[in-house]
Amino acid sequence: MTKVAIVGSGFIGRAWAISFARAGHEVRLWDHLPEATEGARGYIAGVLGDLAANDLLRGQTPDEVLARIAVVADLGEALDGATHIQENTPEKRDIKRDIFERIDAGAGPDAVIASSTSALLPSTFTDHLDGRHRCLVVHPINPPYLVPAAEVVPAPWTSPETLEKTRAFLISAGHAPLVMTRELDGFIMNRMQGALLEEAFRLVADGYASVEDVDIGIRDGLALRWSFMGPFETIDLNAPGGVRDYVERYQSIYSNIFPQMMRRVDWAGEVMKTVEADRRGKLPREKLVERQVWRDRRLMALAAHKRKSDEEFGE
Amino acid sequence: MTKVAIVGSGFIGRAWAISFARAGHEVRLWDHLPEATEGARGYIAGVLGDLAANDLLRGQTPDEVLARIAVVADLGEALDGATHIQENTPEKRDIKRDIFERIDAGAGPDAVIASSTSALLPSTFTDHLDGRHRCLVVHPINPPYLVPAAEVVPAPWTSPETLEKTRAFLISAGHAPLVMTRELDGFIMNRMQGALLEEAFRLVADGYASVEDVDIGIRDGLALRWSFMGPFETIDLNAPGGVRDYVERYQSIYSNIFPQMMRRVDWAGEVMKTVEADRRGKLPREKLVERQVWRDRRLMALAAHKRKSDEEFGE
Repeated sequence: MTKVAIVGSGFIGRAWAISFARAGHEVRLWDHLPEATEGARGYIAGVLGDLAANDLLRGQTPDEVLARIAVVADLGEALDGATHIQENTPEKRDIKRDIFERIDAGAGPDAVIASSTSALLPSTFTDHLDGRHRCLVVHPINPPYLVPAAEVVPAPWTSPETLEKTRAFLISAGHAPLVMTRELDGFIMNRMQGALLEEAFRLVADGYASVEDVDIGIRDGLALRWSFMGPFETIDLNAPGGVRDYVERYQSIYSNIFPQMMRRVDWAGEVMKTVEADRRGKLPREKLVERQVWRDRRLMALAAHKRKSDEEFGE
Repeated sequence: MTKVAIVGSGFIGRAWAISFARAGHEVRLWDHLPEATEGARGYIAGVLGDLAANDLLRGQTPDEVLARIAVVADLGEALDGATHIQENTPEKRDIKRDIFERIDAGAGPDAVIASSTSALLPSTFTDHLDGRHRCLVVHPINPPYLVPAAEVVPAPWTSPETLEKTRAFLISAGHAPLVMTRELDGFIMNRMQGALLEEAFRLVADGYASVEDVDIGIRDGLALRWSFMGPFETIDLNAPGGVRDYVERYQSIYSNIFPQMMRRVDWAGEVMKTVEADRRGKLPREKLVERQVWRDRRLMALAAHKRKSDEEFGE
């Protein structure tokens, strides 16, 4: 059991609290705005009920998990004894610099200090700290209690020991860490998402495909194999001699297309009218929240399915 | 019930035969090499058994489906009365031009003639035909009896009626057609796969991530939501105000990365040593076939899960 401090109690902070408490850790949740934490335990209790219904609490009851999550009024109380600290404040460099300074000053010597940022490189908000060797980014895909992948991104001064402790901690909590060798804008996942979205927006902007066609091609096509193998294993199994054979057979298809990918389309420009008309035609704006609930239920069912398939067929 | 002719009895042809026969159509399978069809019915019977075990035969027995698949020795016999013809010969322009000529001459006036090609544009092998208005590409992801998406790609002279008949036929067979407005290299799915793979190879070539990290980021991260929503619905639900709000908040992350995506890495170059070492370390070459069987079993379990979730939560 590890003591974990969650700094910032928005959706990401609450979601991490659920994930870490489910794994058996003692979690203390703090926010600089006391009122921000008010609904937090009620919200978390609701999610835990849904998780229990999908057998995603490792056999625990919601109350057992909830009992390991405390909301505290003082940052020092949250940090006291914590060996993993997960920061989730707004995506502003100055805010991060300031809160990391406070955390570094208050945390024990063995603590790792991780930021959930998706937008900022760790070097931009940890360079000024005495304990900068123990600072890094741990970037989740929301919600982390359903999506295992988490990116571990070091600053140039992050120690190997910090990386190793973070990797081990995440694995112990049921996560699948991607440990980068050095920081890079967009990390790994948003870079791959961005590459795919660039092509998706280009196809729609140029009138070759509809928004719905693109979504069908992924949800009823490519993402099925990707959802349990990833893109490299997928192509490794798509040619008799494995990945090298695949590349020898098919690279020319991709290299021929590549020059057409060097042109960027402004996603907020003309194409957005088409994208928004398609999406709002399928889902009126007032139903977005209801659909987010649907998404999380489907993600829970998928998580339960994947665990069962891992057990039955192997990973 | 439609009569369907399958021309070419390799893995793609056999897989289409399974999909169309399962949907209730009468399928005749022909190959210019008689010996190529020899093992076809035995192979198909084996797949049908696996599908039945996953409740993926619409309540039919394997024998009921198999009874609708006949191997015929003569192309004319396969084409007689067929209203959908699916061609699956090798990816050579001259072979396609020749077989399309033979099919066009022998098929009835109402028949649609579709090629499974992933590499050739339909205009390059149908321009010389009297019936070129009824020719097009229907490109599956293998195996089509487990992956619903299929790309429908017209040549400039393909008639709207042909497109509409093809779309309706595919939907009746349980497929999810993506109907392109006009032909384009790579169609839709391989373009999106290519965009993502380009970034994946760059990340590995530049040493930021391992092959396994990339696969984790997709299979335990991005592809979970994509596998039931697609990329546009995913971002539509990732900001309070929907897709336009998402783009206003986050486009700068992607536009900052974009210039770094204008550099191509030769997939067969230095990086292939790293990719192949990682993949062969995880899966020796002699286990590729065994792992392909595993992949298809997992795909079957996933297809069954998706159908159940569609029924329980809605699509």
